[in-house]
Amino acid sequence: MYNMDKLFEAVAARGHVCLGLDTAAEYIPEKERRASPAEAVLAYNKAIIDATFDIVACYKVQIAYYEEMGIAGLQSYAATLKYLREKGALVIADIKRGDIADTAGRYARAHFEGDFEADFVTLNPYMGMDSIEPWLQWADNKGKGAFVLMRTSNKGRWDFEELELKERPNVRAGMRLYDAVGDKLSELAAGRLGRHGYGAFGVVVGADPKSPEEREETAAIRAGRPNLFFLIPGYGAQGGAASDAALLLREGNGGVVNASRSILKAWQNPAAGGDPAATDNTFAARAARQAAVEMRDAIGAAIPKAVQ
Amino acid sequence: MYNMDKLFEAVAARGHVCLGLDTAAEYIPEKERRASPAEAVLAYNKAIIDATFDIVACYKVQIAYYEEMGIAGLQSYAATLKYLREKGALVIADIKRGDIADTAGRYARAHFEGDFEADFVTLNPYMGMDSIEPWLQWADNKGKGAFVLMRTSNKGRWDFEELELKERPNVRAGMRLYDAVGDKLSELAAGRLGRHGYGAFGVVVGADPKSPEEREETAAIRAGRPNLFFLIPGYGAQGGAASDAALLLREGNGGVVNASRSILKAWQNPAAGGDPAATDNTFAARAARQAAVEMRDAIGAAIPKAVQ
Repeated sequence: MYNMDKLFEAVAARGHVCLGLDTAAEYIPEKERRASPAEAVLAYNKAIIDATFDIVACYKVQIAYYEEMGIAGLQSYAATLKYLREKGALVIADIKRGDIADTAGRYARAHFEGDFEADFVTLNPYMGMDSIEPWLQWADNKGKGAFVLMRTSNKGRWDFEELELKERPNVRAGMRLYDAVGDKLSELAAGRLGRHGYGAFGVVVGADPKSPEEREETAAIRAGRPNLFFLIPGYGAQGGAASDAALLLREGNGGVVNASRSILKAWQNPAAGGDPAATDNTFAARAARQAAVEMRDAIGAAIPKAVQ
Repeated sequence: MYNMDKLFEAVAARGHVCLGLDTAAEYIPEKERRASPAEAVLAYNKAIIDATFDIVACYKVQIAYYEEMGIAGLQSYAATLKYLREKGALVIADIKRGDIADTAGRYARAHFEGDFEADFVTLNPYMGMDSIEPWLQWADNKGKGAFVLMRTSNKGRWDFEELELKERPNVRAGMRLYDAVGDKLSELAAGRLGRHGYGAFGVVVGADPKSPEEREETAAIRAGRPNLFFLIPGYGAQGGAASDAALLLREGNGGVVNASRSILKAWQNPAAGGDPAATDNTFAARAARQAAVEMRDAIGAAIPKAVQ
């Protein structure tokens, strides 16, 4: 059984929310800050996890936020992953690695075993499929999964991801770079198909349509990649809405939608009703749970309208 | 003054070798292995650095080899960088990061300050220029540099990097994805030009031509990117030869050529004349120096022939 199958089942049971633990020290209530920001971040993560693990599909941990704090930060990163795995929660290590051969194998050991073991990683395809393939051994042996960057939600995607390719025997008219990545990943998924019809490795696809044409294009990505499970960034603080994300989902499944700041910092929202000076981790975690529930329900309500 | 200027001057003084400290525990002489592989790697690195810092332009440290050993490995990574910087050696952190906005800024702080401070990093351009631009602040404030993946030397580069783009107002006929990356980086370099005519940020370009046509293409990359300093992988164990690398260089400058295994494991070469069971770090470091000198001289001799 692939971890992607477990993720499918988690979505079916608990909805589409992927909670991003991109925890910056400045997101933590004043009262809970400590001499060691890395320790404060770990304590905050634990409070958030305890308050949300029954209502989210999975967690995504962006390693940059921990690496920024050096060795101490990476110790908190490792402890966060360990805490999640002990809870039985699925965790995506957002590391966006992309390197070849021997180096890729070493990265895979780093993130699928030992101190930094996660259930999934994110990968960058620029160098080609020989930077993706070394990771497959861990799908075969331990069920591990990956999400490969395909079409992201940032403006910079127009620089390269969206470039149109010249038509050739293997390149259809109008095909963009991200389509070429999608083709390779669809092929790879077909060779490692899980019990729910999705491949062991999926893709990162952003939802940020600016026009009706872009909405159609986004919906076409979902329709054209039936065997790829989507990790969808760009919700909440990054501006994406439930109706956008829904274009990339299927009723009860098809992907997870990541939100970080809008959940981690929900306690700062006046609607949460807290006194900033008095707020502690317990209050912040309750506000996070509320925000995650609202997000889950908003996405759940948007899907039937998007797929009609 | 940009670090890229310092690197130019290091090449002018000491040749084109970039020594890759991709130190796997199994590269270390039997006698010097320890209960902690991470400590053995650090001791080996120090021996290699002491024996080579006067004859190489810079060092490149591939973080995957350290990350594989978890927290202890990253402590050795940090200690290796510190040792290099204390020696006054220039160091490239081979981390191939590529992420946007706030995340990119956090990565930049992680690798240009604190525990993991390096002089240069490697970056992956897939997500677009908004994944490169946040790093520029450190070029402006601290002279830091980066090498962005343009055309690598692995077979997988044919999957995406070498895809031909559709001709458009900004896309010349025959242009490939890597040319589009090169165009963006040339433009960026023009805005941050150092005293020796190279931009603060350069690119990674591999040298592995398989035919006369590919040799011409490789030489054309050098000619077409006058303001970009090249980090050239693929030498030695990866199969590249001095005459290939020379196509991407200029007399006495233009780039650095990385070699790792062929130097770190030179002691295992029968020509080194050691008894494997008796070999220690001192012997291995002497063999590494010899291999680095030979590489430097081979490249130096090949350039005049390549550029004629």
